[in-house]
Amino acid sequence: MADPTGFMPPLSPGGRASILPPPPWHYSGDLLTIEFRVDPSRVDELLPEPLELAEEDPGAVALIFADWQSCSDTFEELLDPVRSQYKEAFVVVRCRYRGETYSRCVYIWVDKDFALVRGWHQGYPKKLGSIWMTRPVRFGRAGPRLEPGGALGASVAVMDRRIVDARFTITGPSDTNGFVNALPMIHHRLFPSIEHPTRRALDELVTMKSYGWEGSEVWRGDAELTFHESPVEEVTRLAPAEMIAAYYRSVGVSWGEGTVLNRSDPG
Amino acid sequence: MADPTGFMPPLSPGGRASILPPPPWHYSGDLLTIEFRVDPSRVDELLPEPLELAEEDPGAVALIFADWQSCSDTFEELLDPVRSQYKEAFVVVRCRYRGETYSRCVYIWVDKDFALVRGWHQGYPKKLGSIWMTRPVRFGRAGPRLEPGGALGASVAVMDRRIVDARFTITGPSDTNGFVNALPMIHHRLFPSIEHPTRRALDELVTMKSYGWEGSEVWRGDAELTFHESPVEEVTRLAPAEMIAAYYRSVGVSWGEGTVLNRSDPG
Amino acid sequence: MADPTGFMPPLSPGGRASILPPPPWHYSGDLLTIEFRVDPSRVDELLPEPLELAEEDPGAVALIFADWQSCSDTFEELLDPVRSQYKEAFVVVRCRYRGETYSRCVYIWVDKDFALVRGWHQGYPKKLGSIWMTRPVRFGRAGPRLEPGGALGASVAVMDRRIVDARFTITGPSDTNGFVNALPMIHHRLFPSIEHPTRRALDELVTMKSYGWEGSEVWRGDAELTFHESPVEEVTRLAPAEMIAAYYRSVGVSWGEGTVLNRSDPG
Amino acid sequence: MADPTGFMPPLSPGGRASILPPPPWHYSGDLLTIEFRVDPSRVDELLPEPLELAEEDPGAVALIFADWQSCSDTFEELLDPVRSQYKEAFVVVRCRYRGETYSRCVYIWVDKDFALVRGWHQGYPKKLGSIWMTRPVRFGRAGPRLEPGGALGASVAVMDRRIVDARFTITGPSDTNGFVNALPMIHHRLFPSIEHPTRRALDELVTMKSYGWEGSEVWRGDAELTFHESPVEEVTRLAPAEMIAAYYRSVGVSWGEGTVLNRSDPG
Repeated sequence: MADPTGFMPPLSPGGRASILPPPPWHYSGDLLTIEFRVDPSRVDELLPEPLELAEEDPGAVALIFADWQSCSDTFEELLDPVRSQYKEAFVVVRCRYRGETYSRCVYIWVDKDFALVRGWHQGYPKKLGSIWMTRPVRFGRAGPRLEPGGALGASVAVMDRRIVDARFTITGPSDTNGFVNALPMIHHRLFPSIEHPTRRALDELVTMKSYGWEGSEVWRGDAELTFHESPVEEVTRLAPAEMIAAYYRSVGVSWGEGTVLNRSDPG
Repeated sequence: MADPTGFMPPLSPGGRASILPPPPWHYSGDLLTIEFRVDPSRVDELLPEPLELAEEDPGAVALIFADWQSCSDTFEELLDPVRSQYKEAFVVVRCRYRGETYSRCVYIWVDKDFALVRGWHQGYPKKLGSIWMTRPVRFGRAGPRLEPGGALGASVAVMDRRIVDARFTITGPSDTNGFVNALPMIHHRLFPSIEHPTRRALDELVTMKSYGWEGSEVWRGDAELTFHESPVEEVTRLAPAEMIAAYYRSVGVSWGEGTVLNRSDPG
Repeated sequence: MADPTGFMPPLSPGGRASILPPPPWHYSGDLLTIEFRVDPSRVDELLPEPLELAEEDPGAVALIFADWQSCSDTFEELLDPVRSQYKEAFVVVRCRYRGETYSRCVYIWVDKDFALVRGWHQGYPKKLGSIWMTRPVRFGRAGPRLEPGGALGASVAVMDRRIVDARFTITGPSDTNGFVNALPMIHHRLFPSIEHPTRRALDELVTMKSYGWEGSEVWRGDAELTFHESPVEEVTRLAPAEMIAAYYRSVGVSWGEGTVLNRSDPG
Repeated sequence: MADPTGFMPPLSPGGRASILPPPPWHYSGDLLTIEFRVDPSRVDELLPEPLELAEEDPGAVALIFADWQSCSDTFEELLDPVRSQYKEAFVVVRCRYRGETYSRCVYIWVDKDFALVRGWHQGYPKKLGSIWMTRPVRFGRAGPRLEPGGALGASVAVMDRRIVDARFTITGPSDTNGFVNALPMIHHRLFPSIEHPTRRALDELVTMKSYGWEGSEVWRGDAELTFHESPVEEVTRLAPAEMIAAYYRSVGVSWGEGTVLNRSDPG
């Protein structure tokens, strides 16, 4: 009899039970990117060896809120939107590896399981959270317009505690969407050994780029950002010392696969 | 000492604890309206006396999905979007009262408590549900475009059971958004007696109109609609006998107050 | 044609769509009751006229966490537990009315819509929240035993913000479950006018008693209690000035109807 | 600077941000085990090579509902129960490997992220779902007693669709809790390659046993079980051909580590 199949567990006769369909995955959504600086030591303490601080502006950090629709190459999730829509918030820093500078996600929260596991596949260290972001509107009084003065709020809660509050007010158009989350990503794909919990059964350093990118005009603005304490988070260590700028735009992008830069033998 | 205050319970010293801030309320959002016909007796059985079937096309029904942002006149909810965003789905029929034809909401599900109670204030018979609707996008492959061929899905679940599945495919522009949900609303505001559960402490027939309405272009299309059985719903009795048409648009609107047409004495 | 029926909206041909089945309602669950004192003015500011402070120990307050199963007289919800189980947390004070002393719920959060609306019927000012309470266990290491030293935690979050944190450590058996929530309840059933939002269409002062009460032994202990700020709560005004005691027990009870003490004419 | 730490991602300076604390993990909870038979080919199609059908009663399947409290060796989660309590439902079959018979979980749904990822560590193919199970009570009318005639309901929903409905009625005490989930577990820990999605970066066959087990008396009874269709599940292929028996009990158990039986080289 044929083996059960599926991109990820659970494997099943038809492969439909997998928590996640196989790549490629397509994404369309809205992004709020808030860039700020912390003391570089606060970035450094998040970088495992052999990753090193970026040479230029090493304390730069981006917090990104995203309101996504995503789907597999069957596109069937788009007609069952509970399987397509999700929100996420993530913290990105830059780092150096073998002479190249990369972007790296250090914290990320999402509100659906398929997105959580997709992140684990890509090396994004995803946890579940409750993420909200104001949507610009074209009509009525219950939302900002994409124009100077338009103001958005955004928040993250984990385990019933608010851990991030952010506000963004548009000042004008921009020809950049920031620089912290703009490089190829470098991530670790880590999975502990079942025999020795301090060792790893999977320990890969990977890089990846998306493809098929397209995006809207960008709006630049001023942001306020507050991290709150939680017993299961350490993001307050990244409390902004200085704000850089913030940006809002809509994008579309696809993702297929990554490249392994280094694989450590199972410990 | 001053009495505690608030538009609704809980009353509190500063009035901030109320489940809902006072009107007016402002709404901006996207609407998918699916119109269809059932045997008129299936509408009639939902109309309490003295409401009567509409004279023309009495079996016409609309199912509307809405993805909303809303706020009070302080607009503060817009910067804390967990208090502003909600989704809902509702079923509207038409009926006659004293020679006038009205729209009337017979079933409605929302996903936030403030929206539930706001509905009870207005006479919308709201329950909690999980509502999802595909969002059109401007970029990328993970969403339809607002153009012929663009396809959206929408669903409602209540108590962990899927009760509505809908699909909409755009055929072209439209100069109407339908006729079933287009009239002044007529609703009952009902609250049972605490002494005699079969009697009512509040029994008002009310009508209301929103104000400050503005809306986008309308897209017309074809829809499929399936209701599923649940022990706590009867919406399958409205299974479409014939589809009429479906429409998608964005709107903005405000709501302040209604008018009592008839008040029955507490039973 | 017969009118649509139901204890509450939505009315439907068979009455099954009602957000809540008719009373009587039966409850079985576990209660953690934490009693403490605040300055009596903090209780007084929560009492609308003509309610007055209790004569004895007027600043006494109880915070109660409850993990419930409930059902209607058909008992069918017990076999579909998503319709039966819910958790709640509520704040009770005492007050005087016409020479009698009553218990009164001033704040309450629940996690299901049927429980929310049931509260509104009874005059409990319910909002949705996320409520958690440790369960004592009989086996294994992942829970306290009901014996001295057993420790429970409990929390409430509203709109993605933690607003209550509580801890309880058992010191020994008790022959009382406290005194604040032990009297007949006196509640307001309030519903605003749809024409004049500052007036009320329903304004009843009601009292009620449950029946068929039975309960377990009571465990007494020490509690810690912290309220946290939220833009939509004012419970921090009840921050404990002094702890009294705390109690844990299991109970069963039924509720049928209440008595109207005073009804104000619609404003 | 020291590397960030944590049992699992996200790694952080203090290790507190990990989605899951390190083992050992302790569990206390209630289990409803429903055993039934399907055509053995329906089990076989879920077994990847080299796993084979059990020799005796190869079509036996168990569906288990569990209402858990769990914690790490710090026990701190027990005082913050949102981090401790979760519910799950899982399907277990038996199989043979190298002459030994094992239990194997083929489908499992949980309602918290820490439990999902803990399952992935152990080889349980967890997805998020909404799981409910009636709780026996000692007082009141809103729950069954643990005695003959006591009846429980249980359900699973995934992506807003009910996929499992179960009922259990106690007939009497039992000296067994069933045989399908009673053997050492054999699981695959699978993680896809980021470079070639049809290959695996981690592919381990593991076995494990819990320790520190203790349990209550067992109640035996009759069960009904219905699986419902979903586009993202295939559990209806396991629709019971014949019911065996069902059991209810409370247990406590701990888990520390497993053993790798076979590791395939990264593909």
